[in-house]
Amino acid sequence: MENSKKVVVAVDAHGGDNAPACVLEGVKLAVNKDPNLYVELFGDKDAIESFCTQNDKVNANFTTKILKMSDDPELVIKRQFADCSIVQACKAVKNNQAQAFFSAGSTGACAAAASVIIRRFANIKRPCIISALPSPKGSTILADMGANPDCSPENLLQFGQMASLYAQNICGIQNPKIGLLSNGEEDCKGNSFTKETHALLCEKLDGFKGNAESPNIIDGSFDIVLADGFCGNIALKAIEGTSKMLMSEIKSSLMSSLKSKIGALLIKNSLYSLKEKMSDDIGGAILLGVQGVVVIGHGNSKAKNISDGILTSAKMARSNLINKMNEEFGKR
Amino acid sequence: MENSKKVVVAVDAHGGDNAPACVLEGVKLAVNKDPNLYVELFGDKDAIESFCTQNDKVNANFTTKILKMSDDPELVIKRQFADCSIVQACKAVKNNQAQAFFSAGSTGACAAAASVIIRRFANIKRPCIISALPSPKGSTILADMGANPDCSPENLLQFGQMASLYAQNICGIQNPKIGLLSNGEEDCKGNSFTKETHALLCEKLDGFKGNAESPNIIDGSFDIVLADGFCGNIALKAIEGTSKMLMSEIKSSLMSSLKSKIGALLIKNSLYSLKEKMSDDIGGAILLGVQGVVVIGHGNSKAKNISDGILTSAKMARSNLINKMNEEFGKR
Repeated sequence: MENSKKVVVAVDAHGGDNAPACVLEGVKLAVNKDPNLYVELFGDKDAIESFCTQNDKVNANFTTKILKMSDDPELVIKRQFADCSIVQACKAVKNNQAQAFFSAGSTGACAAAASVIIRRFANIKRPCIISALPSPKGSTILADMGANPDCSPENLLQFGQMASLYAQNICGIQNPKIGLLSNGEEDCKGNSFTKETHALLCEKLDGFKGNAESPNIIDGSFDIVLADGFCGNIALKAIEGTSKMLMSEIKSSLMSSLKSKIGALLIKNSLYSLKEKMSDDIGGAILLGVQGVVVIGHGNSKAKNISDGILTSAKMARSNLINKMNEEFGKR
Repeated sequence: MENSKKVVVAVDAHGGDNAPACVLEGVKLAVNKDPNLYVELFGDKDAIESFCTQNDKVNANFTTKILKMSDDPELVIKRQFADCSIVQACKAVKNNQAQAFFSAGSTGACAAAASVIIRRFANIKRPCIISALPSPKGSTILADMGANPDCSPENLLQFGQMASLYAQNICGIQNPKIGLLSNGEEDCKGNSFTKETHALLCEKLDGFKGNAESPNIIDGSFDIVLADGFCGNIALKAIEGTSKMLMSEIKSSLMSSLKSKIGALLIKNSLYSLKEKMSDDIGGAILLGVQGVVVIGHGNSKAKNISDGILTSAKMARSNLINKMNEEFGKR
């Protein structure tokens, strides 16, 4: 039903550790899955020309520069990188050649390019990066995941307002429950920054329910958890790092006690299904606050994740989110 | 060898969710395990008298007040709680009736009482709370775990110096590798507070190796990871919460695919041994910065954890730690 609307996503062919091969594979998966999805692919001629010739839903846009993951993200907005795939893909969104931008490249570079080229909403002071973490009850949005290491209470209020519009328009959650990441659930807990923020959110943020502790990011108590980008990043990496380490410890621990081949196979399948359940299916993180859809995949994305990210971009482009944000935060 | 030195630990009978029964059981385990360990037990007469009569290594000290976990921790230093078990046990350390204080009660209350009664070292601005998190290579000390939500860079320098003395004198690590919790390992990463702290630690902290990310708290890259109490608490709870949720998800996921009773038993044993491996064996957290040994158990401690905490207190009291800290930070 939703997929009936034609949508064009601008994709950076050079984003991620496994680019461009993996990106091309992901693009193919995505356009095959969604009949009304088209891709404007941005990348080096040698890397993308023959792929685009073979796929009539993918249009080639040749660029001459590549910003590597190891490059300083801020370089992306310098003149020497004007013809790189990230910049040109953002320009395609700005010029309405595409309705969304997807890259699995450097988060910092994508956010910087999008902020400069697609531009912030008039009343948004800082864009933020959100992601949905799986919980037993569905998923919880964490905002900000790392775009803004230093924040004001007002920044967090805006992150909450934007994440709330995302939850309503993309996740179908009408009255999202919003928490503030702190070191205790009681109102009196926090550092001086979160105490000041808590007071502002109580006064001004619809759906604000008070402090959240780290485990609440994954236990389904809240639809949205707010944090400055420094603490959000610390919590996110702690959750991801612990999951990864535990899965590997459990696998080796179980393998050594269950020696039979059937047992090993059952465990493998069981852990695999759990891993699927625990990983997000939006294929990356979302930049909120710029006047267009921007989705940024993990650097280690596989073809399936790239495809998920492009399909998420298309879903967002077909939604009313950017219009609603325009109404709320003003066109520039 | 180490255990040959007689040591007395002051124990709060009313600390923790399962007090006093669980504390008494833990005390019994500890004194049975360590022939030269004696306990001064502080608590309500009805709760501890008969237990102490039956255990000749445990001396009863009757108190009339109990600070509940739900009480404001700051109440502990008010006159109305002067005769509570936490305060009286701290006084026993101050008066040399005991060489260490153990409680599984409110962390905030224990830290407040110890700071006021046992008192800080002359040159320590703020005590901190540390704990050791298990890693595949041993364990990593996290400081501060939550005592100080707002910190100065100088506070973190002192936490690093104190944790380093702990690692050397208690864990036998001669040159501990110290990291600063941040949102990226590169020197340039961080918020304004951690950037300023990073510069100070580079200049003044022996063994400082730069920024650490959350997963480094559990992967063995560092012996000590420093954070303000707010971020340290967020990282700690994210790690603990994720472990807990994953263990329970894995258990149910495996149980449903492996229906046979033998399979279920093997899984149970395997997860149990993993859980043991993943949990600390110091029985709680340690308050560093006051002129005496203070160990604070988890609120949900079982008898085994209480016993571990008391044995850790004894180990610390027998070590040279407090003398070394006196030399470094000055008696008051």
